[in-house]
Amino acid sequence: MTDVPTFESRIRDSFARQQAMVTIGASLSAVRKGEVEIVLPFAPKLTQQHGFIHGGVVAMIADSACGYAALTMMPADAAVLTIEFKLNLLSPAKGERLRALGRVVRPGRKLFVCLGEVFADNGGDTKQVALMTASMMVTETATGLKD
Amino acid sequence: MTDVPTFESRIRDSFARQQAMVTIGASLSAVRKGEVEIVLPFAPKLTQQHGFIHGGVVAMIADSACGYAALTMMPADAAVLTIEFKLNLLSPAKGERLRALGRVVRPGRKLFVCLGEVFADNGGDTKQVALMTASMMVTETATGLKD
Amino acid sequence: MTDVPTFESRIRDSFARQQAMVTIGASLSAVRKGEVEIVLPFAPKLTQQHGFIHGGVVAMIADSACGYAALTMMPADAAVLTIEFKLNLLSPAKGERLRALGRVVRPGRKLFVCLGEVFADNGGDTKQVALMTASMMVTETATGLKD
Amino acid sequence: MTDVPTFESRIRDSFARQQAMVTIGASLSAVRKGEVEIVLPFAPKLTQQHGFIHGGVVAMIADSACGYAALTMMPADAAVLTIEFKLNLLSPAKGERLRALGRVVRPGRKLFVCLGEVFADNGGDTKQVALMTASMMVTETATGLKD
Repeated sequence: MTDVPTFESRIRDSFARQQAMVTIGASLSAVRKGEVEIVLPFAPKLTQQHGFIHGGVVAMIADSACGYAALTMMPADAAVLTIEFKLNLLSPAKGERLRALGRVVRPGRKLFVCLGEVFADNGGDTKQVALMTASMMVTETATGLKD
Repeated sequence: MTDVPTFESRIRDSFARQQAMVTIGASLSAVRKGEVEIVLPFAPKLTQQHGFIHGGVVAMIADSACGYAALTMMPADAAVLTIEFKLNLLSPAKGERLRALGRVVRPGRKLFVCLGEVFADNGGDTKQVALMTASMMVTETATGLKD
Repeated sequence: MTDVPTFESRIRDSFARQQAMVTIGASLSAVRKGEVEIVLPFAPKLTQQHGFIHGGVVAMIADSACGYAALTMMPADAAVLTIEFKLNLLSPAKGERLRALGRVVRPGRKLFVCLGEVFADNGGDTKQVALMTASMMVTETATGLKD
Repeated sequence: MTDVPTFESRIRDSFARQQAMVTIGASLSAVRKGEVEIVLPFAPKLTQQHGFIHGGVVAMIADSACGYAALTMMPADAAVLTIEFKLNLLSPAKGERLRALGRVVRPGRKLFVCLGEVFADNGGDTKQVALMTASMMVTETATGLKD
């Protein structure tokens, strides 16, 4: 019998409700305490004018990976809201797939700070293409604390 | 007879090649020297777990608006690359449509800094939902200067 | 008889306790609801290796201007804490003095987002040298909400 | 006989010209290829209104650590300019001293991206108080490429 941690099923349920992730074809590849990984296969529909994956799409998977990494460490009845993120684009986002790894750098009662790294996997090669830092707010409802 | 400025047709051509913009349903609503506006109608496929438009999607239209605002002021043979952006999410991104306004704050020979504001229009109401600052690099090719 | 608004005396009292502002020679030049200006005369002791004012010093006055702009709109018993800021350096910070203007973009019950602009004044000329966005937290004590 | 790497003496010479570092009492504690550490003893003259070290002072040492980390990997005749940085403040900056560790995440011909971590050392304890990401530009002169 497999024991899936409570936080993992919560994260998987929430991720399944992120229709934007379905739209781009992203999936959850790992959920650990304080760390979440999201995988996104390359698709032409995600590209910018030079044929690379759009920087905003890179931000989408990094933001979700960071937010869910924070949610793994929040109380069971909490919701997570992104306050802000910054993304440095290190190299063109091209390859067979992107992989965003979000990790909690600083947990808190009201505020989490996370680091997101996005890699491009191509054949056996892996190259980091982006770096994110993000602030996540703990809230009881989707809009509550922010207002 | 209408005179479309050279930069406007360049921006419209480039935007049309951003397949990611087609995927989310975004369109160019204004192209002026140093300023570009992109409109995105609300769609369930763009949402996160609370039913608001995903923060990364907000980043997509703000990033494209900023990048194209910069491109309006670059030489005709230049390409634009996003180096980095930061997005502050001010309010839940909900409403009939989002509107991203990108403006050049500081043009340069190699580097542009832009400000992006994203608004939610709902009936007659407008509310700012996000604020972006972004650095854009001038390059001759899509990858050249960055490497 | 002059009526100084309550918030103005609160901000001036708090600023006077920022010993770092004294150290660099900065002073409060304007305090309005939602907007604070800080002036910093050029001094060699503030420079980096090229003789310009150090980017971190530019951040100091922009951060304080943004934080106090937020504090003008907070309840009388609240304290303000910077969560994060981002600074884009637009031009070398040189001239007779720097002037940081902080403004509230989005007030909130728990969280404020501010925009900071730093200008260099030189003779009759003014040039923008930096752009900041910052998140400020409302708290009852100096460390309370953050933990 | 000790061999000091060429890049180390270049960094130490440049740091010695940063008068702002002298003003706050910061010193270079380590210079390695791609990594620089700066130490700052606590001093009341560096504080904000709650008695913690001012967030902008934290930014000063993180920015210099990141910039010099980048400079260790640049050609001998290059200069380094900060384009932008973002600082997340994780905990109040208090303790006996702060220590900023700057590391190159992505070197480039024209552009470097660096990660800065700032720790507070207090007795035997160490706590991370801030996280920076920064973009550094390679230039031949102090202002050249930026304009």
